[in-house]
Amino acid sequence: MRIGICGLGTVGSGVFNLIARNAEEIRRKTGFAIEITQVGCRKDNPNVDLSQANVTRDIFEVVKNPDIDLVLELIGGTDVALKLVTEAISNGKHVVTANKALIAMHGDEIFAQAAVAGVRVRFEAAIAGGIPIVKSIREGLAANRISWLAGIINGTSNFILTEMEQPGTNLKFEDVLREAQELGYAEADPTFDVEGIDAAHKLTILSSIAFGIPLQFDAVYTEGISGVTSEDIQYADELGYKIKHLGITRKSENGVELRVHPTLIRKEEMLAQVNGVMNAVMVGSDSAGGTMYYGAGAGAGPTASAVVADVIDIVCAQGSTGIPNLGFTPKNIQALPVVAIEEITCACYLKLNVLDQPGVMAQLSTVLSQHDISIEALIQKDTHGGNAVIVILTNDVVEKSINAAIVELKALSAVKGEVTRIRITALHD
Amino acid sequence: MRIGICGLGTVGSGVFNLIARNAEEIRRKTGFAIEITQVGCRKDNPNVDLSQANVTRDIFEVVKNPDIDLVLELIGGTDVALKLVTEAISNGKHVVTANKALIAMHGDEIFAQAAVAGVRVRFEAAIAGGIPIVKSIREGLAANRISWLAGIINGTSNFILTEMEQPGTNLKFEDVLREAQELGYAEADPTFDVEGIDAAHKLTILSSIAFGIPLQFDAVYTEGISGVTSEDIQYADELGYKIKHLGITRKSENGVELRVHPTLIRKEEMLAQVNGVMNAVMVGSDSAGGTMYYGAGAGAGPTASAVVADVIDIVCAQGSTGIPNLGFTPKNIQALPVVAIEEITCACYLKLNVLDQPGVMAQLSTVLSQHDISIEALIQKDTHGGNAVIVILTNDVVEKSINAAIVELKALSAVKGEVTRIRITALHD
Repeated sequence: MRIGICGLGTVGSGVFNLIARNAEEIRRKTGFAIEITQVGCRKDNPNVDLSQANVTRDIFEVVKNPDIDLVLELIGGTDVALKLVTEAISNGKHVVTANKALIAMHGDEIFAQAAVAGVRVRFEAAIAGGIPIVKSIREGLAANRISWLAGIINGTSNFILTEMEQPGTNLKFEDVLREAQELGYAEADPTFDVEGIDAAHKLTILSSIAFGIPLQFDAVYTEGISGVTSEDIQYADELGYKIKHLGITRKSENGVELRVHPTLIRKEEMLAQVNGVMNAVMVGSDSAGGTMYYGAGAGAGPTASAVVADVIDIVCAQGSTGIPNLGFTPKNIQALPVVAIEEITCACYLKLNVLDQPGVMAQLSTVLSQHDISIEALIQKDTHGGNAVIVILTNDVVEKSINAAIVELKALSAVKGEVTRIRITALHD
Repeated sequence: MRIGICGLGTVGSGVFNLIARNAEEIRRKTGFAIEITQVGCRKDNPNVDLSQANVTRDIFEVVKNPDIDLVLELIGGTDVALKLVTEAISNGKHVVTANKALIAMHGDEIFAQAAVAGVRVRFEAAIAGGIPIVKSIREGLAANRISWLAGIINGTSNFILTEMEQPGTNLKFEDVLREAQELGYAEADPTFDVEGIDAAHKLTILSSIAFGIPLQFDAVYTEGISGVTSEDIQYADELGYKIKHLGITRKSENGVELRVHPTLIRKEEMLAQVNGVMNAVMVGSDSAGGTMYYGAGAGAGPTASAVVADVIDIVCAQGSTGIPNLGFTPKNIQALPVVAIEEITCACYLKLNVLDQPGVMAQLSTVLSQHDISIEALIQKDTHGGNAVIVILTNDVVEKSINAAIVELKALSAVKGEVTRIRITALHD
């Protein structure tokens, strides 16, 4: 199999070096040699020895090269990448990409085009770095109906939340973000990570391979972690929970839920143990039950591991139909209605700043009960100056009911400022 | 693909029912229908509706049936199963098996025969139930050199250790074993599980797919959990550790380590969070780093999930070379020396019952230092009647040194009874 690499940044150089370093082990495993026929990059990368390589400064030369069977799209972005992938496919080349935004936003057209051309488009590296999560869902759990999945799929957000957990430090989001930037765990412009967009890209892809539905990034409800405070993390802890930023998708009788937001999960859950920049995805399925996949979600090595695994898959599957790119045959991918966030049911964490005066609790309880919201747990924290903080865990409630209740709670004269609401996720059916 | 099922016990009935239940979802995914052409079983299973099935009481009829392409060996045991699998292969049929003992003990001859016949023999269900661990190592991590792996791969042992952790209960191994038997988590004869033999079967297979070495069950150092006490678990806890029963394999310059034994691991490790009957395997690799795979390790549903995933793989890979059965092409499977347990290096937990008298600590320290063993941590517990319990954590030491030291420690007049030694495992390179 003759390979062309487009892009020689962190991922591209990682892939090039991994193929060089483990060429012999990969040959031992598969019986095939992976040969890098051409590298397209705007400039050389000092971490890569290109002395034996056929280098071009025009990445489109790679997708036109008749000696190349498989193109690795590792340039990132969506505009040029889409053009590159489209041209590779129409030239009859297989494609492996690490580009989550590309697949999440343009996957439907890319896979439709690949089906017509009879080539494969693989994207293991787009989600959760070195964890073979795409393969595990698409192939390892192929016998199952998936009912839900939930994942820590953005290392930056998980790093920040983990740091903010450190007891007694009372670290602010902004401070930890700066630390993450200094450590190289967060970009200079951190929006994609901390506002949940990166996680929404990944969740879009995961939901498609889990349920056989089109890729619909625009339908994902997306909320980042910038509103989470150390105080919330501390109160959650007292109540037996951690706060994690999850991508969640779930199939119900009303359709499919697609949402990315901070959420409380029970401390005992495996996902609650996933700290720092690590990623993990828990998958609920009808036969295997709950299975979880854990590892490094980013970085040159883990990402390269996933890219080259896809290459090996394509090499070894030559001549067969193989498992479809999205785990479902293209004609059987069926749209399901996406459940509006207002129709989601889950328990909630509410935090209110109130005047510490008689009758406040009765007023809060009345509002909640008028919306059929029952209280699972409640803690009151006295603060300085006659104020108190009240934290409530509700039982399961439809989002629109809690929205309405929050409006009324805020209107109470005893309630000061915003009402914090964080959803609680039960990680089972 | 026309399938013959041999065996209709827990696994066989689970597979039959899963294929029936999810036939439509599997067709949506793969584009193929899985057709059960014949079922061979000594007697019907009340959980299975065989009214539409072609049933034979002679399982060997299934492997002779010219209308069958793929045989599922789900009878268990090794004698008849080996004969059945051998005959299926020589009749040109692919084989999927859930039989860890068969693969661990007879895998080399089975895979050699399959290579000659050009058929596939898959065994995902043999290890860790519904967790796609074989696929993840063999394919998901195919670009990597694996350096080590460690797994909780026997649910019975993990259940017993988890129960014994309950603080203050001071439960004895025998009592928890009885509880496990009542709950159906342990067999009437629990030897295979609690003495580590089942885990050794699984580790044998994992080591082969990780390193491309022959299957050598006889070379596994195997120790079960029957010697672990609640007291050890409690002391380990005080020192920041949990006790888990792990299968460990590691490649070093001296060869490959293959060992199954109880071990202390740091509480913060992901594997330390795996409780009850759940399984998990952590894999250390050069590019992806550490990745972990978690889920139910046994039961009809999880096991059937793995068996049918193998079936789907074989169906979808028709016409291609596919990834080899053991993840390495047969001619590239190379024997490595197995490191004798006496040559293993790891830190150790030692527990001694001593007379509470002056100079004891000096005597212990002298023995240890004479064997170049340094002390990482030490706690002393006073007990009744002038005795004390001393718990020592050593730094890394070669097994034969600690063995020699233990002999000398036991010979000291102040040391009473046995010296407990439990290895400590650091879950990184």
